[in-house]
Amino acid sequence: MSPSDRPVVTFLSDFGLDGAAAICRGVILAICPEAQIVDIAHTVPKYAIADAAFILASALPWMPVGVHLAVVDPGVGTARHPIAVRVARGDILVGPDNGLLIDGADALGGISEVRELANEALWGPARSSTFHGRDLFAPVAARLAANPATFDDLGPVLPAADLVRLARRTAAFRDGWLETEVIYVDSFGNLRLAGSASDLARLGWGEVGAIPLQVELPAETAGEPRVIESHLVTTFGEVAEGSSLVYLDSSGHPALADSQGNAAARLAVRTGVRVRVRQR
Amino acid sequence: MSPSDRPVVTFLSDFGLDGAAAICRGVILAICPEAQIVDIAHTVPKYAIADAAFILASALPWMPVGVHLAVVDPGVGTARHPIAVRVARGDILVGPDNGLLIDGADALGGISEVRELANEALWGPARSSTFHGRDLFAPVAARLAANPATFDDLGPVLPAADLVRLARRTAAFRDGWLETEVIYVDSFGNLRLAGSASDLARLGWGEVGAIPLQVELPAETAGEPRVIESHLVTTFGEVAEGSSLVYLDSSGHPALADSQGNAAARLAVRTGVRVRVRQR
Amino acid sequence: MSPSDRPVVTFLSDFGLDGAAAICRGVILAICPEAQIVDIAHTVPKYAIADAAFILASALPWMPVGVHLAVVDPGVGTARHPIAVRVARGDILVGPDNGLLIDGADALGGISEVRELANEALWGPARSSTFHGRDLFAPVAARLAANPATFDDLGPVLPAADLVRLARRTAAFRDGWLETEVIYVDSFGNLRLAGSASDLARLGWGEVGAIPLQVELPAETAGEPRVIESHLVTTFGEVAEGSSLVYLDSSGHPALADSQGNAAARLAVRTGVRVRVRQR
Repeated sequence: MSPSDRPVVTFLSDFGLDGAAAICRGVILAICPEAQIVDIAHTVPKYAIADAAFILASALPWMPVGVHLAVVDPGVGTARHPIAVRVARGDILVGPDNGLLIDGADALGGISEVRELANEALWGPARSSTFHGRDLFAPVAARLAANPATFDDLGPVLPAADLVRLARRTAAFRDGWLETEVIYVDSFGNLRLAGSASDLARLGWGEVGAIPLQVELPAETAGEPRVIESHLVTTFGEVAEGSSLVYLDSSGHPALADSQGNAAARLAVRTGVRVRVRQR
Repeated sequence: MSPSDRPVVTFLSDFGLDGAAAICRGVILAICPEAQIVDIAHTVPKYAIADAAFILASALPWMPVGVHLAVVDPGVGTARHPIAVRVARGDILVGPDNGLLIDGADALGGISEVRELANEALWGPARSSTFHGRDLFAPVAARLAANPATFDDLGPVLPAADLVRLARRTAAFRDGWLETEVIYVDSFGNLRLAGSASDLARLGWGEVGAIPLQVELPAETAGEPRVIESHLVTTFGEVAEGSSLVYLDSSGHPALADSQGNAAARLAVRTGVRVRVRQR
Repeated sequence: MSPSDRPVVTFLSDFGLDGAAAICRGVILAICPEAQIVDIAHTVPKYAIADAAFILASALPWMPVGVHLAVVDPGVGTARHPIAVRVARGDILVGPDNGLLIDGADALGGISEVRELANEALWGPARSSTFHGRDLFAPVAARLAANPATFDDLGPVLPAADLVRLARRTAAFRDGWLETEVIYVDSFGNLRLAGSASDLARLGWGEVGAIPLQVELPAETAGEPRVIESHLVTTFGEVAEGSSLVYLDSSGHPALADSQGNAAARLAVRTGVRVRVRQR
């Protein structure tokens, strides 16, 4: 990353829409008036590190090279490290060491170097114990945007292997079923699932026409798992409005949706729920 | 529209606040780093083309001349055309051919020329079947912002008369009643109605003082229509807090509201509901 | 405030997310294309002047010097004055004279001069009686951003002492209790309380370790007040997840929260509720 006339600073948090994210935007612009701030999301469920990590990793490859500020930080004020992560593409990610940044860094080519934000001379003037977005992360992100070479002054190098990582959600085939898990529920109510295009290929994806599928979900309360009928398709329009479909989402994961409906609401399914899919 | 130092790109979608709109912003800035992006709305109800068309037409006359990206696209991935529409004021609207853009184009002086976005060289590098905002519409909008002359390279001219149009919602007088329809419920819960200032003039608008009105709404469940008392006024302050009023809204439509209250919630009324109004 | 290449215009309203705030952004950019607009919040509860005043006063000290547009205006179209307020730091606040701007002005060093926005030549071209954000406040804010010297042309000077002020919410000690009031509920559900760091110091804040507290809240329905156990701490991490804590919030007020929980929802407490706190 080289200095630019309008350095990009993207910004993701669980701060909501009532002013805390705006305060961080003000802090950034006071330090780096030419910053081009791109808000990624601020209504992530509170403390939902995994949801935020999914959004960040989906978004970062589409952002210009820049500084990426991400703050979902239930451990604010405790011993968790504030960090900056330089990645292969040249970007710098800034946030807490709680797993939030890892998938995003991988999506930009992987981690090159990690620094602990120990140099308080680069923080802001205030020192709250509850709003490090304002007092620490945003000031550091702004200084990096104004001058990426500041990275070397942030503090000691941390081994990438020592960073906190979230549990990896994976998919596997067993007895003809793709066994997977809901890794994110998007704002349309589409259920993004662990796995990849090759998992869908094993279910027949790429063949001509819609492939009939069975999808098994846990019982809503006690009892037998629920089995619903769905179709593996390429576009929403291949099934009737309201019908279930499985498709390859725009970030490369399998997804379960209702055409022009909200599958998460209809099926009462949330992140973390186990799902099985097979041809019928 | 001529090239500018900071070309304006406005952006309306039903993508919600969890990252999809941000991805499109990143795509735009990667292609046109100097773009001045103005988000119009992203929390439009999913697939609500008519609501989005109302917001777009209300907003566009107040925007600087520029490129206007609008994506509410239940037919994504199907045969519906992606289009760009040049209008009399000089702006270019970009989005799906599903009726979304028509009222906005009319609000900017009417359609000059329509192009189908058939030239894939101007799209982005990815080809999902579910996220044309990212892969098609945002890249084209950004290229138009960077160089409006690109319009001629987008693809074949389409006859404006062939574009998909939404059903026109109209108002009419019958037996002394203004018969109209809720065309939009705004975030205050005010019911925007089909019609114009001249319809309100027939009800007495412009005369001195508040005009007593009857407003007839369909029954909430089965049964007789509901009739409520209201007043035709110029400002909210002319009726007591919580009282019903009818006024000319800031986009030139009649509107039914509760002073400092939420009429849509109190009356359980939604877009599409038929409403009759007369003097009492 | 001196003219700048990218003058900052911050913007707070209760307009919601469906286009009205965007219209004001368009109006600003049409008049002052180089404006750097920073949205502070637009989902403030409708007509909630006190909530908006709290957010504004918390945010403004972190914003670059600029023009600060704030519109929560239940009296739109009535006799209340539209005003601009110049403050000691050099900023100019623009909005209705209903108490909204006072705490923000104080947070920037206090009021230097107030002008009534009487000069209609500086307004926009339209004259609605319900959308002064678009027709009056945003155009004036944009002209001030483009040229701060416009301040002298806005209209007559108003005595600061004549401005409308909100009721002051205060805290006091009585019989060993800190008697205070909820002044804001943030998006985390944390209850911000009237008072200051010195009030918390009297409860033991600054001593080593967590101080056990009793917190008394009104009964949810009729009956005895509720008393809950809490701890006065410096960081959320000092109590177990889900436990109650009292801390000094990032804007300098006492606050009552649940660690990684939503205290406002759990306790069914809203702005204005009286709260008593003492050591146990």
